[in-house]
Amino acid sequence: MSEHDLQTVRTGVQCDIAETAVVGEPSGKSDAKTLIGDDATIRGGTIVYTDVVIGDDFSTGHHALVRGGTTVGDDVLVGSHAVLDGDLEIGSHVSCQTGVYLPPETTVGDNVFLGPHAVVTNDPYPVRPTSELVGATIESDVSVGANATILPGVTVGEGSFVAAGAVVTEDVPAETLAVGSPASHEPLPEELQGGNRLR
Amino acid sequence: MSEHDLQTVRTGVQCDIAETAVVGEPSGKSDAKTLIGDDATIRGGTIVYTDVVIGDDFSTGHHALVRGGTTVGDDVLVGSHAVLDGDLEIGSHVSCQTGVYLPPETTVGDNVFLGPHAVVTNDPYPVRPTSELVGATIESDVSVGANATILPGVTVGEGSFVAAGAVVTEDVPAETLAVGSPASHEPLPEELQGGNRLR
Amino acid sequence: MSEHDLQTVRTGVQCDIAETAVVGEPSGKSDAKTLIGDDATIRGGTIVYTDVVIGDDFSTGHHALVRGGTTVGDDVLVGSHAVLDGDLEIGSHVSCQTGVYLPPETTVGDNVFLGPHAVVTNDPYPVRPTSELVGATIESDVSVGANATILPGVTVGEGSFVAAGAVVTEDVPAETLAVGSPASHEPLPEELQGGNRLR
Repeated sequence: MSEHDLQTVRTGVQCDIAETAVVGEPSGKSDAKTLIGDDATIRGGTIVYTDVVIGDDFSTGHHALVRGGTTVGDDVLVGSHAVLDGDLEIGSHVSCQTGVYLPPETTVGDNVFLGPHAVVTNDPYPVRPTSELVGATIESDVSVGANATILPGVTVGEGSFVAAGAVVTEDVPAETLAVGSPASHEPLPEELQGGNRLR
Repeated sequence: MSEHDLQTVRTGVQCDIAETAVVGEPSGKSDAKTLIGDDATIRGGTIVYTDVVIGDDFSTGHHALVRGGTTVGDDVLVGSHAVLDGDLEIGSHVSCQTGVYLPPETTVGDNVFLGPHAVVTNDPYPVRPTSELVGATIESDVSVGANATILPGVTVGEGSFVAAGAVVTEDVPAETLAVGSPASHEPLPEELQGGNRLR
Repeated sequence: MSEHDLQTVRTGVQCDIAETAVVGEPSGKSDAKTLIGDDATIRGGTIVYTDVVIGDDFSTGHHALVRGGTTVGDDVLVGSHAVLDGDLEIGSHVSCQTGVYLPPETTVGDNVFLGPHAVVTNDPYPVRPTSELVGATIESDVSVGANATILPGVTVGEGSFVAAGAVVTEDVPAETLAVGSPASHEPLPEELQGGNRLR
């Protein structure tokens, strides 16, 4: 932890933090520390800010980024180049694959799989000077496919499956398949029911 | 600026350049310096080449990349992992969110918002040995949604809005909504008219 | 090569490896070395694991990642932020543009162009605990457009062209254009036939 300020970082036992990772990058918004549980593996090039609370069994790829105001449960992977852009909340047993982007105000439940380059948004009217951010909610047991896009304020219901490349513009009911651009909603095929590999 | 060659970099006052950022990476194509205005914030892991001219109030996320031959106006954000791939021109008051990709020959106006992972292209026939690059043009007051793709040579007209996930294959007239894959064009809804949050 | 273990890395002549690149990051799965041919250019921030075999004329952008179990031919570019996520095979004369993602079990032929942020997948049922990875195959002389997504197990046939933003859910026959989300298949237009710029 050569570059980390031990005053601002507290990690559990058996943590493996690469020399080129930065843990405790000042968030500037709060005096809160970086708190990380046991058995973390943080790979080279990754940056974790202060004002972050992370559970046990955390692991990252390379060049991942976790900004301030983020809460993360146990057994979470933040893949290479994935960005948790601060002020968001993630449950346990969550896999954020390479290049996933989660903006502020996002909520993610437990047992969630976010495929490579899945992007969640939070700004419904980015052209307006008065736009308020409206975060999306990914409920538990959801899988979001590669390159999928979730629009601001959308809730993806429990046990649902967002297909690769889907653009989700409306709330997805529980146990539903969202597919296409814009996504239409279909009953979940049998082979996609009943579980999550991360459970 | 421990790693920067001061001979090739000139920055204005009140610039905050992280120790792990590299400013002045040799572009190899020109002897031109890296010129950056006042009040820049360049975060860790970001790389800015020589032969780059940037105005005041520039800021970057982490691991952003600005290659040679790039001109950037005032008040521009280049988000984490965003890439300005050289030989391109960007106006003032532009926000390139996380993971945006802009290739050579791209032109971006003023007051433009490029959502996370928006990708602009420049190669109409990448399979042909003789393909010439044809840059896209994003005019002023445009917003491009997350994960949207702009095809080579396309012009997105002033005040237009490209929806998240849209694949824009034809010129978008001014004050138009482009939505879908491939994108169709619709009159701009009232709530998307009249302004840009960055103004 | 200040940070590299020379015991585990062997490179050819005329290799230019940036000081902030890491070559020989331990893959943990094998004792195999990192073997790189002649005339490599590996730019700053890039990480190449052990248990990787790469031919001549290899080059990378910045912050690229090549994980263990990867075999790469001659004259291959791995662009900035592109990820070869291990246990995959790539031919010769291949261009992986910025932000490309190739997961384990992927096979890529010769003379292939992968546009910026093209994403290949390998997990047909990410919600199931027993899911087996099924890699995609990109045959020779294929071009994959920007932001395109290739579903698990799909074969993109020789000489085919996947349009930007396409979501490819079924095998693409040789000399075919795949376009849309989900992609439909059309005969290859004349201007996309007959060659590859990388040849």
